[in-house]
Amino acid sequence: MTVDDPRHAFMRRAIELSRVKMREGEGGPFGAVVVHEGRIVGEGWNRVLATRDPTAHAEIVAIREACQRLGRFSLEGAQIYATGEPCPMCLGAILWARIEHLYYGNTRLEAAAIGFDDAAFYDEVGRPPDRRALPSERLLADEARVVFAEWAAKPDKVRY
Amino acid sequence: MTVDDPRHAFMRRAIELSRVKMREGEGGPFGAVVVHEGRIVGEGWNRVLATRDPTAHAEIVAIREACQRLGRFSLEGAQIYATGEPCPMCLGAILWARIEHLYYGNTRLEAAAIGFDDAAFYDEVGRPPDRRALPSERLLADEARVVFAEWAAKPDKVRY
Repeated sequence: MTVDDPRHAFMRRAIELSRVKMREGEGGPFGAVVVHEGRIVGEGWNRVLATRDPTAHAEIVAIREACQRLGRFSLEGAQIYATGEPCPMCLGAILWARIEHLYYGNTRLEAAAIGFDDAAFYDEVGRPPDRRALPSERLLADEARVVFAEWAAKPDKVRY
Repeated sequence: MTVDDPRHAFMRRAIELSRVKMREGEGGPFGAVVVHEGRIVGEGWNRVLATRDPTAHAEIVAIREACQRLGRFSLEGAQIYATGEPCPMCLGAILWARIEHLYYGNTRLEAAAIGFDDAAFYDEVGRPPDRRALPSERLLADEARVVFAEWAAKPDKVRY
């Protein structure tokens, strides 16, 4: 890594977003950028408070913008720079988007130290459904399964 | 649980959405509804293909709609009915939204059997960052941490 490492510029842009948008009251202190072929194609910051949307984390916002700009649901070959270690929701989004490399600044423990539940949610997601704090029950599995079977048999389906 | 159990009606609505929207080509065979005080306040179905958005899973779409309708980022006291066990992204969203109860139909293994990566992603999310298939690196942590510290010291912050 050199002084002119472009990865530093991308992460600094994410950090700038985290600072500016937090000060504007958009949400928590988190920013992210998605980079494809050497340029930023998506920018995001936490907008949970501004949009009253608990899913509006920086990474989700950046991924959605990048996909709209590129016109596709896969970000294969792209990198994401996030100022905080992605929570399970955002890591899931990164995986579904097929992003190839993650760079992050603060860890889940540092997020916990300033009052966020990322670390606790990693623990919760890691448990089987019947051992979580969130009560979870199966219901009408036989009826739901019929639609899965219809998908399996669908000849023209697009995989994602 | 009786024949008239209202939970059956809510799950059947989610299953109906999963079937109809899959047939319309919106995305995979998944539906979800969010229920608050006995009525549906958010409906979702997989829209990954139609919107070219890898985060447009049924649960995310339903949660976002419910929050917009109720005008708040917390769904405390609400239940979610999902036709498939939520993936880590969607479970994370359910936790951030503070939903109180999860009902689901098919499991992550049944989703795997028809070609979806939910189970594999649960494994990936459960690993520490340095042991994942997704390459993950920390970068400029000292600079990112300054913004976390500013949040911690912010007197008027709203917690979420």
